[in-house]
Formats: sequence, structure tokens, C-alpha cells
Amino acid sequence: MNANGTLFGGSLLRWIDEEAAIYSIIQLGNKHVVTKFMSEINFIASAKEGDLIEMGLTAIDFGRTSITLRAEVRNIFTQQSILTIEKLVFVNMGPDGKPEPHGYDQITYTRDRIPLEITKALI
Amino acid sequence: MNANGTLFGGSLLRWIDEEAAIYSIIQLGNKHVVTKFMSEINFIASAKEGDLIEMGLTAIDFGRTSITLRAEVRNIFTQQSILTIEKLVFVNMGPDGKPEPHGYDQITYTRDRIPLEITKALI
Amino acid sequence: MNANGTLFGGSLLRWIDEEAAIYSIIQLGNKHVVTKFMSEINFIASAKEGDLIEMGLTAIDFGRTSITLRAEVRNIFTQQSILTIEKLVFVNMGPDGKPEPHGYDQITYTRDRIPLEITKALI
Amino acid sequence: MNANGTLFGGSLLRWIDEEAAIYSIIQLGNKHVVTKFMSEINFIASAKEGDLIEMGLTAIDFGRTSITLRAEVRNIFTQQSILTIEKLVFVNMGPDGKPEPHGYDQITYTRDRIPLEITKALI
Amino acid sequence: MNANGTLFGGSLLRWIDEEAAIYSIIQLGNKHVVTKFMSEINFIASAKEGDLIEMGLTAIDFGRTSITLRAEVRNIFTQQSILTIEKLVFVNMGPDGKPEPHGYDQITYTRDRIPLEITKALI
Amino acid sequence: MNANGTLFGGSLLRWIDEEAAIYSIIQLGNKHVVTKFMSEINFIASAKEGDLIEMGLTAIDFGRTSITLRAEVRNIFTQQSILTIEKLVFVNMGPDGKPEPHGYDQITYTRDRIPLEITKALI
Repeated sequence: MNANGTLFGGSLLRWIDEEAAIYSIIQLGNKHVVTKFMSEINFIASAKEGDLIEMGLTAIDFGRTSITLRAEVRNIFTQQSILTIEKLVFVNMGPDGKPEPHGYDQITYTRDRIPLEITKALI
Repeated sequence: MNANGTLFGGSLLRWIDEEAAIYSIIQLGNKHVVTKFMSEINFIASAKEGDLIEMGLTAIDFGRTSITLRAEVRNIFTQQSILTIEKLVFVNMGPDGKPEPHGYDQITYTRDRIPLEITKALI
Repeated sequence: MNANGTLFGGSLLRWIDEEAAIYSIIQLGNKHVVTKFMSEINFIASAKEGDLIEMGLTAIDFGRTSITLRAEVRNIFTQQSILTIEKLVFVNMGPDGKPEPHGYDQITYTRDRIPLEITKALI
Repeated sequence: MNANGTLFGGSLLRWIDEEAAIYSIIQLGNKHVVTKFMSEINFIASAKEGDLIEMGLTAIDFGRTSITLRAEVRNIFTQQSILTIEKLVFVNMGPDGKPEPHGYDQITYTRDRIPLEITKALI
Repeated sequence: MNANGTLFGGSLLRWIDEEAAIYSIIQLGNKHVVTKFMSEINFIASAKEGDLIEMGLTAIDFGRTSITLRAEVRNIFTQQSILTIEKLVFVNMGPDGKPEPHGYDQITYTRDRIPLEITKALI
Repeated sequence: MNANGTLFGGSLLRWIDEEAAIYSIIQLGNKHVVTKFMSEINFIASAKEGDLIEMGLTAIDFGRTSITLRAEVRNIFTQQSILTIEKLVFVNMGPDGKPEPHGYDQITYTRDRIPLEITKALI
């Protein structure tokens, strides 16, 4: 969030994408994953500097070369929802830089509450 | 784009949101705008470190308290599309932190090509 | 980790301190906490760019105005320990900028596995 | 130091580690050094945004493959001590990524006062 | 611009250099360009956090291996000049890391208004 | 220095401005100083990631409300000059945001060698 609060949206999306990428890397056991798709994003409530927010991430589908997650960001203390992204799709990449089957269809690591303190612009 | 390329999506979204916020601020003559909505995002092609990309931003609708933009990101040299976001909605905020009518319905500043060099993770 | 790997130690410590501060803020229900003490730090193993590491954080003691945590950083896949800090002490600050009793002596939020992907220098 | 002052500890440690790494690189004439150990850290006084602080760094011991430094951080104007780290050990690494004898036992570069202005979060 | 406003000059210069490098890369169709020279810089007016500024960049000369630009930074709303740099020279580098003829003498891409919102320290 | 080395110039200027601002703040005993002028800058040699460079800063003139410094950046090991800025002028600001006499005409703090390791893009 910058001085006038306008940049919060993009920084929040960057944080969500980073955490979701790490989550996918752990699920697929492969560091080469890329963001392929995000469903629409509705900013229900806002957050201000110093707030503590948390994100719930869940794997909701395993494709042949992809993994689909659902993300919900909430205020930690009030539990008010800030935004929800129904589908975040990451693709498993092979050494040749092309999508590659990953062979998984089960969640192997629980990561259901990731807290963050809002810092100035989230850098 | 980090070492294994996974973080590109989120950094790109942060850049888009920042530029779109500046564009909205200029259109509405008000520094207090917030991201309200993004329609779904399909990453058609990828970009790698050192690539030069550009974004076309256009105001497509003026609501009473909001402005809606369309964004398309392309490779500068090949003009290949990297992603398109059909709707980015920003809301004009009043001094009380609530949506406020902005009184505009015309584009006042042309900003149709914004280039960027991809740096490591776009920071 | 910079080009020659030398800066990893400090960036890792910054990440540990940030996460431990958030953990303390949540435990004490107060955003004004400051780092007061860290016991000695022995870097047992190293980590390189692209590695996935995780940190276990546990509150091990509640003082009148302080909270003491234990942190252990491990490689996610190998579970090899990278470093352990036996004591990280944070102090609860009052509105006057002085230590203030916090009134807690129980853990209220479990946060036992925090994963991170090592990025260039961890920024 | 972030909005509520909690992150100062970690950012300060990152700065100390960075400066100490540069100092070690200069002493050993080798860019491949890694942080191996820090003795306990007691934050005696705090510093706030806009303060000017300085660090005194001294090599206190040369091992076969390591160098040990002592660091003290002070407020420039008041000379009040903010923290002292009695031992920071860096190890000289060979091209194979393993500790390598460095052959030095003398300080070759005086670097006794390094000033810094505290900026928001020290980035 | 940091807490006391002193760092604005350097951050502004970094932004100018980055944008001018991208402009040169586009003009010369080569990613390997380096900053070679800047003529004197007179900070006529200042800018504060939250201000919107824009830069006009124009190629004013094409040498055999170089390109010379002129940059002017202005406040977007008042159009007041903040600073002007009469000459920014970038050199076209070959694969061997030495200056190489670029073969251009015409502007191929118009980029005459680049807006920026001043953020805390411009990072 | 980014992936293709083009951004080094601007990041280097930001570092120089930051260090010179700190030096001026110390000399004038006032945190409110602003960059007013830089004489032309000739990049004699380049530096690459991992290099160790140092800067010599000297106060060469005290005006009524200003201080003028000279800066030279060198490679630490080869002592080769990378660039020299003959005049960097900072102005002492009063609480009203206007230039104010500082009352100094003597150097009070020696700061003649400031080392830096070149990191990716210097951040």
C-alpha cells in the first residue's frame, strides 16, 4: 500500500502468486512451475498498513500437467474476507521448458494458514 | 522471474496494477483510487529475463465512482500477446475513505504503450 | 544469496526476524513488539538459490512484558537442519514506547511450518 | 523499521552481515566467503527512522579457513551503543564449495566507522 | 524520497537511467547498452511523496556506436520542470563487451511521456 | 547491473547520492538536506556483478546554505577509477522547507573510503 493506498491490489496479488507457486512446487516436487491462469478477483474489503492478514490456500484439482488452487485472504483478527480467487492454475514444466506430466493427484503438505503483516507497499 | 521462473506471474500483475493505478489517477485527477476488480487472466505466452515487453492500457468505461480499463501485455519486438485483462476496475475514493463520484467520462491522457525490460523477478 | 553466496546469512536472519515478529504480534495481540535478544546462531548447513526451506517457530516462554521463541530452519525436501536459534526474545511495547505487561501465557495460534523458496539474495 | 517498529532487528542484522561479508572479502582477497556463526545479540537500545547509526567492525581472529570479526553499532551523534556482536565468523570457500585455507593473519584494510541512515524498514 | 527527503535525487536518477536505457535498447534493437555519460544535473524544483511526475525522453543524436538522449522531468499536473539533463549517452555493446557500431540514425519508437507516481524512496 | 548490464549507471548514481547525503547530514548536523546539483558524470570504466568498489567522498566547499562534495568511485583491488563527479551540491533545509544557513565551514568527520560489493542491480 503506497502513500495513497492505490498500489495495494498489485502487491497483494504478487504475494498470493508467490505463496501459491511455493505451494505448487511442494505439491509437485518440481521447482519449475509457471502461473497459467487466475480466475476473476473481487476485492471485497481493503487492508491498511499494519494490518495482519492471512491466506488460506487449497489444492482443488490436479490435471495431467497442472495443479489448480483456491486462495482466500482474510484479516487475521476479524476473519473478514478481503478477496477470494476461485482458481489459480500452475503448470509443471519439464527441462525443455514445456509442460510435463507430474504424476500427482493428492495433497502432500498442509498449508492452510499463511499470515502476513501489511508493510508499506508490501515492497 | 525468479531462478526457476515461477514468480513471473505475480510480479507482472503488480506492474500492471501499478501502471493502471497511475493511469486512473491521471484520468480522475485524484490520487485516492483503489483496485476493485480484475477479470480473469490467461497467461498465453511467457517472457524471460531480459525480454522487453510493453503494455497497452485503455479506459473502456467510466462509472459514477469507478473507471474500467483494459490491459494487454505484448513482447515489444515480436508483438506476441503475453496476456490480456479485459477489465480492471479502480474506484475513486473520497477524503472519508469511501467511494466518491468523480464526474469524468472522457479519456484525458493517452498512454497506449508502456515498455518494460524484464529484470530478475521484476523486483 | 548474492552472486558469490556471501549474503545469505543476513537475509536469512531478516526473514527469521520478520516471521518471528509476526508470530509474536499474533500471540500478544499487539502490533508494537521489538526484537530484544537472539541467542547464538550456528549455520550448520547452507542453502542455495532455488532451494525450498521451512522454519519451525515455537513460543517457549512468556515473560511479563516479553515472549521467547525458538526457531529452526530446515530444507523442506531433505529435512536437514540449516540453523537453530534457541532463543529469540521480543518485547511488548506500550503506546509510550516502553515495555508493557501483555497478560498472556498461552500459545493461541499454531504456526509450526513456514516454507520459503530461496530467491536471489532473498531481496 | 516498519510501521510499527517490529522489523528493525532483522534489517539491522542483514546490514551487519552484508558489511561484515564485504570486510571479510577484502581481508581474505576472495569473494567466496560464507557466514558460519554469530554469537548472541543483545539489543541494548533501539533506533528510529531517520537516525544515523554507525558500525565499528574489527577482525579479531584469523583461523586457518575462517576470519572472526567483532561488530558494534552506535548512534552517530550520541555514540550510544545499540548492539554488540562479539563474534561473527566467516569461512573462506574454495572453488569446490568447501572451506579452504586463506593464508592470512593480518588486517589489511581499516574499516572502523561505517555510517548508515535508518530508512523505512532499511528496505 | 526517504523520511527526511534527502534521497530523492539519487532515486530519481536511477529511474531516469532505467527508462533511458530501455529507450536506447528499443532504438538500437540491442539489449547490451551501457551508460557512458550524463551532462550536469540541476534540480530546479523538488517533488514529494504522492506527486505524479512525467519524463520526456528524446533521442537527439546517433553516433557510430552511441546514442544521445535528452531528458526532462516535470510535474504532471502543474507541468513545472523538476530537472533537465541535456545529454545522456549510452553505448551499444557487442558480444565481446566492446563498443560496436549500431547502424541506426533514426528514431523508431516514440516515447515522449512517461508518468511515475512518487513512492516512498522510489524504492 | 541487470541481466544485460544496462542499469548499472543509475544504480551507481543512487548509491553515490545516498552516501553523499549521509555525509552531508553528518557534516551539517541536520537531517534535512536535499540534492541540488551534480556536475557531469563520465563513466570511465565499468564494473560487473561481484566486483568490490569503493568511493572517496570529500567536502570541497561550504556555502552559506549548501555543502559541495567531490566523489570518486574506484575498483578496490585494482584502484582503477570508474567515475568521478567533481561537484555534488546538497542544500541545508529549514523546518519550513526552505534553504537555511548551516553555520559550518569545516569537515568534522572523515569518510574517505566507502566499500561496496556490486550485487545484482544494486537493488
